[in-house]
Amino acid sequence: MASVTISVQQDVLAERRQKAAELRDEFSRKGTLVVNVVSSPGAGKTSLLQAMARHWNGAFRIAVLVGDIATERDAERLRPHMPAEQLTTGGACHLEIPLVRKGLERLGDRPLDFLFIENIGNLVCPASWDLGEHLRVVLLSTTEGDDKPGKYPKMFRTSHVLVITKSDLLPYVPFNVASAIEDAHQIQPQLSTFVTSALHDEGVDAWCSYLVEERGRMLKSTLLSTHDENDSP
Amino acid sequence: MASVTISVQQDVLAERRQKAAELRDEFSRKGTLVVNVVSSPGAGKTSLLQAMARHWNGAFRIAVLVGDIATERDAERLRPHMPAEQLTTGGACHLEIPLVRKGLERLGDRPLDFLFIENIGNLVCPASWDLGEHLRVVLLSTTEGDDKPGKYPKMFRTSHVLVITKSDLLPYVPFNVASAIEDAHQIQPQLSTFVTSALHDEGVDAWCSYLVEERGRMLKSTLLSTHDENDSP
Repeated sequence: MASVTISVQQDVLAERRQKAAELRDEFSRKGTLVVNVVSSPGAGKTSLLQAMARHWNGAFRIAVLVGDIATERDAERLRPHMPAEQLTTGGACHLEIPLVRKGLERLGDRPLDFLFIENIGNLVCPASWDLGEHLRVVLLSTTEGDDKPGKYPKMFRTSHVLVITKSDLLPYVPFNVASAIEDAHQIQPQLSTFVTSALHDEGVDAWCSYLVEERGRMLKSTLLSTHDENDSP
Repeated sequence: MASVTISVQQDVLAERRQKAAELRDEFSRKGTLVVNVVSSPGAGKTSLLQAMARHWNGAFRIAVLVGDIATERDAERLRPHMPAEQLTTGGACHLEIPLVRKGLERLGDRPLDFLFIENIGNLVCPASWDLGEHLRVVLLSTTEGDDKPGKYPKMFRTSHVLVITKSDLLPYVPFNVASAIEDAHQIQPQLSTFVTSALHDEGVDAWCSYLVEERGRMLKSTLLSTHDENDSP
């Protein structure tokens, strides 16, 4: 027998936005800056997180939820560095909030300064799903070519930061850093940009400093808005 | 007002399979071997097609339909080498047959030995869409890591061929060719495998020879099945 699906699209979208805003508020109140890390498969999301953990070396309380279609491979790579919970979608091309909430339950109620959500390797679908993050960070590896932002515009338009990865391979690949950044800025002029090599621990310091500053801004803004609420009659 | 979508899923799937089989038959009767090229963004689909055109140097009549979410960039790169029509999905994460048929109309009724369909750069969604191809070829670049087949199983399970690309970068990246092939064969033992560098024109000859042999098999099989049909009462 054929199955029948009825979706009331507009209501669903509004509900999704509402749930993401609620989750973001929860994170803000706890002082946890949440970073949704998106990219093509193999652009270096896991390697960058490993390099960041090496750089911080325990200075911040961090954890990661790792999205994959199948396997626990990325969580296994990250567990020596930080608490890591694998979110396996079983085929779906992006993460959604209910799965993120399951991962949060498994992480337990530990205080965190930063929570990273390593999304499914996919430059298309995750662009349409707000996971309650404060920052969306798109990684672009030098081996993918500097023409990618224009070809995958929604992902770059909805991101706050572009991190170019694998800069150690620049001598061997046809990739112009300035062209890639210019192409990305055509789509999203507000993008902050960083150039990194996780393998050689290059550029990771500047990227980590930026995150610490962003967390400071979030803490201040949450503090002020809570203060405002208390002040209101 | 909310929009309401009703989909009768089972019928839709059966209709999709039927349309793909019909298109594949059309291609077979015309003697055109159709190759659906899938991969992550930036794995080198366009560069491999350029290298193949250089290798064949006019020996075969080839054309390409190039899928992208936005821009004509890949078609522009391919037009000096072969007739190329850009299929722009405007956001969708995979190609479907109606868009392929539009591309075929734009290509016109020219006889072709090989038609390549360069799919959207995405290791997830295109796995679920049969475009009427004879061969599905998944590219995996050495810079993406040798752990990808297990993490994106449907794409590797539904492919006939794995082409490892960017072998020139092997000295600089942590990628074990044997491990990647073993991981892929765990999922799909029938996968044929090739290792190539389009930038250095390495391994392209073996891959092109394989395609010529596959086309020979397709022509022979179509000839025999037509003969059988004529024989039947």
